[in-house]
Amino acid sequence: MNLTGRHLIDPNDFTIEELKRVIDLGLEIYRNPSNYASLCKGKILGTLFYEPSTRTRLSFESAMLRMGGSVLGFSDSSTSSVSKGETIADTIRVLDGYADVLVMRHPREGAPKLASEFSSVPVVNGGDGGHQHPTQTLADLITIKNYRGEIANLKVAFCGDLLFGRTVHSLLKTLSRFPNVSFVLISPEQLKIPSHLRDEIILNNNVEIIETQSLEDHISDIDILYMTRIQRERFFNEEEYIKLKDSYILYREKLTKAKDDLLILHPLPRVNEINRDVDADSRAKYFEQAKLGVYARMALMALILGVIE
Amino acid sequence: MNLTGRHLIDPNDFTIEELKRVIDLGLEIYRNPSNYASLCKGKILGTLFYEPSTRTRLSFESAMLRMGGSVLGFSDSSTSSVSKGETIADTIRVLDGYADVLVMRHPREGAPKLASEFSSVPVVNGGDGGHQHPTQTLADLITIKNYRGEIANLKVAFCGDLLFGRTVHSLLKTLSRFPNVSFVLISPEQLKIPSHLRDEIILNNNVEIIETQSLEDHISDIDILYMTRIQRERFFNEEEYIKLKDSYILYREKLTKAKDDLLILHPLPRVNEINRDVDADSRAKYFEQAKLGVYARMALMALILGVIE
Amino acid sequence: MNLTGRHLIDPNDFTIEELKRVIDLGLEIYRNPSNYASLCKGKILGTLFYEPSTRTRLSFESAMLRMGGSVLGFSDSSTSSVSKGETIADTIRVLDGYADVLVMRHPREGAPKLASEFSSVPVVNGGDGGHQHPTQTLADLITIKNYRGEIANLKVAFCGDLLFGRTVHSLLKTLSRFPNVSFVLISPEQLKIPSHLRDEIILNNNVEIIETQSLEDHISDIDILYMTRIQRERFFNEEEYIKLKDSYILYREKLTKAKDDLLILHPLPRVNEINRDVDADSRAKYFEQAKLGVYARMALMALILGVIE
Repeated sequence: MNLTGRHLIDPNDFTIEELKRVIDLGLEIYRNPSNYASLCKGKILGTLFYEPSTRTRLSFESAMLRMGGSVLGFSDSSTSSVSKGETIADTIRVLDGYADVLVMRHPREGAPKLASEFSSVPVVNGGDGGHQHPTQTLADLITIKNYRGEIANLKVAFCGDLLFGRTVHSLLKTLSRFPNVSFVLISPEQLKIPSHLRDEIILNNNVEIIETQSLEDHISDIDILYMTRIQRERFFNEEEYIKLKDSYILYREKLTKAKDDLLILHPLPRVNEINRDVDADSRAKYFEQAKLGVYARMALMALILGVIE
Repeated sequence: MNLTGRHLIDPNDFTIEELKRVIDLGLEIYRNPSNYASLCKGKILGTLFYEPSTRTRLSFESAMLRMGGSVLGFSDSSTSSVSKGETIADTIRVLDGYADVLVMRHPREGAPKLASEFSSVPVVNGGDGGHQHPTQTLADLITIKNYRGEIANLKVAFCGDLLFGRTVHSLLKTLSRFPNVSFVLISPEQLKIPSHLRDEIILNNNVEIIETQSLEDHISDIDILYMTRIQRERFFNEEEYIKLKDSYILYREKLTKAKDDLLILHPLPRVNEINRDVDADSRAKYFEQAKLGVYARMALMALILGVIE
Repeated sequence: MNLTGRHLIDPNDFTIEELKRVIDLGLEIYRNPSNYASLCKGKILGTLFYEPSTRTRLSFESAMLRMGGSVLGFSDSSTSSVSKGETIADTIRVLDGYADVLVMRHPREGAPKLASEFSSVPVVNGGDGGHQHPTQTLADLITIKNYRGEIANLKVAFCGDLLFGRTVHSLLKTLSRFPNVSFVLISPEQLKIPSHLRDEIILNNNVEIIETQSLEDHISDIDILYMTRIQRERFFNEEEYIKLKDSYILYREKLTKAKDDLLILHPLPRVNEINRDVDADSRAKYFEQAKLGVYARMALMALILGVIE
């Protein structure tokens, strides 16, 4: 297995073995960070954020800096001149001369894929529209691996906006490729997962998918609860937003019936879908998830840069 | 005395001895910078600027880079996604995983204090509303120490906007804790210091405070003249701004009666409150003050990161 | 020859010998980058971009990072506070304490020159209005040197907007100082080079200048074809923009009559003035030009910082 020079645009770009390699290396770095503090000395990460994303951008930057590398880029295309009528193909053919690995966030689905076709250095998708967010999936997987020991034999619930949430789509697709993982998909009728995604999951993974509107009916039975925000900007009108935004809020009292080793995850930022009283519960791991995401990104970059193995 | 892991939100958070430790280390680094060029290797400063501030932000960045560390962050919350309905508490619990020390500027008073309560890494207040700006105070103190030898036995005049200026408030409070420092407070009637601050100073420091509207009456008698800008954005209406903005402008000719070792300071940027002909006067030290501020911030970060002593 | 501490505001600031020194060192670094990977350890580049420019800014940043130095600055004055009524002179007298070399882009012509007069560290002009862009000229020269072996005995065509294009003006002025370089200036009547520039070139270089509206008449005869974008923002009205923007588009079929060793250059970004089918032609070197520009900037900074020779 050699990941040197590889792009990561869609979680399906990597085999299960390759994903495991990234996760395992990430946990190894997490446990012994000082062994890796100079791994990327002389390497430059280029952050091409055509849409602001503080968390994802800074997680990548921290990952590169913690390996002794450095960072350049832009955090908002409106304050850069990349939009001066230039195509993505041209932009990439310039910027791949400035950096050794590129991460791109773009409001348009498919933009990072296009970039990867013109780039002489590895390109990582930092989120494209409602499409994919593969390194959030790596953050999710490394957290599951860290707290559960393996990514297998799990009943995983997703709760909230399952129609538009790219983090949900990326993780669902990916988990469906791991052994014996079943799903409980909890959402309002209007925000169920797209049917093409449901079909793909069933094809990968011949286990039960439950689609339901009730969190309470399933809370006692699940191993992982993945909460998501219902993003205001995804709604077509304000009225619908107000009606649905408070659905599926997790309060600590709802957890009394949950398993002791339940993992509560969230891609963050949260608004109010997880009440603050849940934070003190030892099963709440969403802040650890954000921290572990840095290590998953370190492992990913080290491997595609070819500075390890 | 151990400053490792400490936050600096208000200048009162540090004892006089602790402030002196920061200042003395800052001057030591200033005199022998090459001894400290790798002190923060592997350390990351996170700059969380919810409001633009080029000088303060770049001074911190320079300080960290000059010690061999690195920097990530955002310089304007509008081009970051930190405002997507997320609380400061949540933001900090993510970002403290990305950096080893955080500096926060925020338009809302108290925001850095709140951040420090949730952060696992030291938080430095980079200015919060009209409240405090403790590292500007460090820049002021290091300059006084550098040119006067000690911070004691001084008559210090503050001139300009004493009501809204957070740099004035932070420095006044802090100087009032040093031995035998008295004050001449020169401002229009409407821009006198807040009464609670006057009370606090008198409590700390049982010496005379003179409140006056005249700079000329006192110019011959003072050791330090701290000029401040009357910020347009602090005024309630344009008319009042225009009427007052030209008050208390310092021209070189006004300095003929001043002491030879007077120190003229200013937190910068200036607009016209110090006329350009003053720049050539050897008593004008405001640009040196900005430069020395970098060394004060180096010392502060080295101490709270625990990489020294 | 010693470039330590020198500013580069106008290409004429450097003699031909000095320009050659920069170019030659740039090519040496390009060929043996690992020999120079720590050359600027401990040095800080300050990027003062009062106007967004992703390519130029990131090229400088990459150059500094690839020599082991670090970078601070701002990429857009609207998200910085540098505009709070402060003069450039004051800003520079603060920022020259934060960095070891400064690059400034400014919408106002002459601003970098003014900055250099107040700075205690070297200042490089990163583009000022329609005036000069000397490091683009370095990128152009290093590309010519790399592919032609020497900068001499060349017939160079410039095509497009020759009136407003600062990259054209800087390169024209500079090439006119090299031995036996003649020019073919291809533009619409309204966008011919300014007459003062034509006079300067003729004075430098006693060879023929052809001014023409036809690219086709000269394509078979030239050694270098420097294409430029006709920038929308340079036009006085939309109608004129639409009428002229499609003039002088280069298609691959137009190249059939061109020399085999023609160099096609472009400062980028392009809009449609070079058709995409040209990219596959081995004579198209504009992406290599952008990449080589990083090495020219590395050499420039190493020399003015005095870390080499």
